[in-house]
Amino acid sequence: MESNGRKAVVLLSGGLDSATVLAIARTEGYEPYALSFRYGQRHEVELHAAKKVATSVGAAGHVVAEIDLRVFGGSALTADIDVPHHDNADDLSSGEIPITYVPARNTVFLSFALAWAETLEASDVFIGVSAVDYSGYPDCRPEYIEAYERMANLATKAGVEGRQNLRIHTPLIELSKAQTIARGLELGVDYALTHSCYDPSPQGQACGTCDSCKLRGKGFAELGLTDPALSTPPVVA
Amino acid sequence: MESNGRKAVVLLSGGLDSATVLAIARTEGYEPYALSFRYGQRHEVELHAAKKVATSVGAAGHVVAEIDLRVFGGSALTADIDVPHHDNADDLSSGEIPITYVPARNTVFLSFALAWAETLEASDVFIGVSAVDYSGYPDCRPEYIEAYERMANLATKAGVEGRQNLRIHTPLIELSKAQTIARGLELGVDYALTHSCYDPSPQGQACGTCDSCKLRGKGFAELGLTDPALSTPPVVA
Repeated sequence: MESNGRKAVVLLSGGLDSATVLAIARTEGYEPYALSFRYGQRHEVELHAAKKVATSVGAAGHVVAEIDLRVFGGSALTADIDVPHHDNADDLSSGEIPITYVPARNTVFLSFALAWAETLEASDVFIGVSAVDYSGYPDCRPEYIEAYERMANLATKAGVEGRQNLRIHTPLIELSKAQTIARGLELGVDYALTHSCYDPSPQGQACGTCDSCKLRGKGFAELGLTDPALSTPPVVA
Repeated sequence: MESNGRKAVVLLSGGLDSATVLAIARTEGYEPYALSFRYGQRHEVELHAAKKVATSVGAAGHVVAEIDLRVFGGSALTADIDVPHHDNADDLSSGEIPITYVPARNTVFLSFALAWAETLEASDVFIGVSAVDYSGYPDCRPEYIEAYERMANLATKAGVEGRQNLRIHTPLIELSKAQTIARGLELGVDYALTHSCYDPSPQGQACGTCDSCKLRGKGFAELGLTDPALSTPPVVA
């Protein structure tokens, strides 16, 4: 891959989607700076996965920003509410917003990405949202991303001074989970390093039955594959 | 003041502007929830002031959210760069963006306000930006605020479900510093409790000569008053 000489901030959770997006940013020639968050989520294993993915894909930098959304309550990912489990993947497409929704999460995450992009003098931010395997998150829709981009270009010193015309890249927005995985495999992403589970074992092993595990399992199954995160040792000892 | 039965999130730095905004929200009948940030700023004294102001004005709640923008560098307020001092207030209106600019600060702060508003089932957020005593911050302009509001209404579960039509209130946006102070005094704001200084003494006393001290000093002077923050003991012992 040839460098285009441009830095980009890539939101990296350590999950399947963001790992794929990081590889896509690299392939498009960007120098990718990966941004993860310690945001009161219960599973530090996500951040271990993010670190391994950043190294594996070849990020130019990786920062973990500390934020704490628990102070506001309101989600299974940040509070002590039970995560729902399913016997099969079909109950995922109900169209309801899951209780694992975190209020304003992408808005908060993109805001930090914007701050870092300005400091790096970068004009490109990558985020792994998908509107196809739509899980009911309003902040994964194209109209939201477009409105964010417009706001961001009015927000910063670099934007006002004409040094920055921020673009939010959403390379997965029209891809199904299976298509995302196929693209990532083409680019050499090692999905065994990624972690998407909402309810891992204390040792960090994915459960295989939460919404997130079911969704990625279905994607691998459509390609005739098994999710390597379910058959490999956990990312933390 | 009569309650309108609605909760509102009010961004509260502990400074003169946000203290005035909190009092305005109360006067308009909102039940105000004050939101402050520990964001790697060097001066904990701001948060002591915020707490005193929240109590004094009668906020329904006050939360301090932890965020750390230092990880990205780039500002005198969050890194080890010298704060500029001035002999008079005239050099403030140069139109240049000051080095005390924090990248994407209001975007980050409003994002947290949005998260809390959704959790509180509130549709109103108050922020003390002013476009008159324009200090060169792009994220204090009306066009920025309008774009943020539009984005926010596409971002949340509550917005999508029609339970929330978020409005960002900017009651100071057309007021000079003197007009802001006059309004606050009408509403009984005790400005001796507020803290705006970029470079206080180790005991928390305002310096009187940084951009922020000069700007508020000029506002009080226009009303024939002296800034009480300069003549009263600091808010921390």
